[in-house]
Amino acid sequence: MTTASVLDAITFDSSGLVPAIAQQHDTGEVLMVAWMNADSIAETLATGQACYWSRSRQALWRKGESSGQTQRLVEMRIDCDGDTLLLLVNQTGVACHTGRRNCFFRAVRDGEVTVIAEPDVDPKSLYGHK
Amino acid sequence: MTTASVLDAITFDSSGLVPAIAQQHDTGEVLMVAWMNADSIAETLATGQACYWSRSRQALWRKGESSGQTQRLVEMRIDCDGDTLLLLVNQTGVACHTGRRNCFFRAVRDGEVTVIAEPDVDPKSLYGHK
Repeated sequence: MTTASVLDAITFDSSGLVPAIAQQHDTGEVLMVAWMNADSIAETLATGQACYWSRSRQALWRKGESSGQTQRLVEMRIDCDGDTLLLLVNQTGVACHTGRRNCFFRAVRDGEVTVIAEPDVDPKSLYGHK
Repeated sequence: MTTASVLDAITFDSSGLVPAIAQQHDTGEVLMVAWMNADSIAETLATGQACYWSRSRQALWRKGESSGQTQRLVEMRIDCDGDTLLLLVNQTGVACHTGRRNCFFRAVRDGEVTVIAEPDVDPKSLYGHK
């Protein structure tokens, strides 16, 4: 695995980050968007499990580490400008901290923001508190 | 159309921008990622045609205005944190300025960045120069 050649193809922002879309590899469902830095990209490629950079915690965020809702990497893709990643993944359980399968559960319909999906699981069961 | 209630649900970054994924509404293909500000969101909702904010030109970017490769909005979705948008669109032609259907035509395979899709159209035909 030549991680250097991958990192060379990526244009990081001034904070050293790049946005990454996680998409369910077989259904095409867009699950979530998170941020990655060079270390999280290297770890994701090395382990085959999605690892992001938490901007709020300023730490590596091994997706599912506390919730069990992991994402197995199927393929990493890089866009034309190198400033966005697309992770094709196989999501275990739910991607969203609200307990929903994906994070995009609010739609603009008739000019109003409308909730279009309910949680599959109680978020309390994901984190044991909150 | 109550654009104010939509904008209230969105958390813009320090530059007044939010990343937006354009996804082909029926196939699930992730076409591209661009940035939107409040004005481009309002215009997109008002016209039903995707309009982004060009960070390089610092101007509204009416997708397809020069290339003809427009995106008709099917639905706008907002993620749990309000800091990413998902635009379900109907893409006319190709989304990528390279002439490819989508921008994510480079994949990490066997540790190397590999081009996995060729242009559908000559980019010269999209812009008449370049």
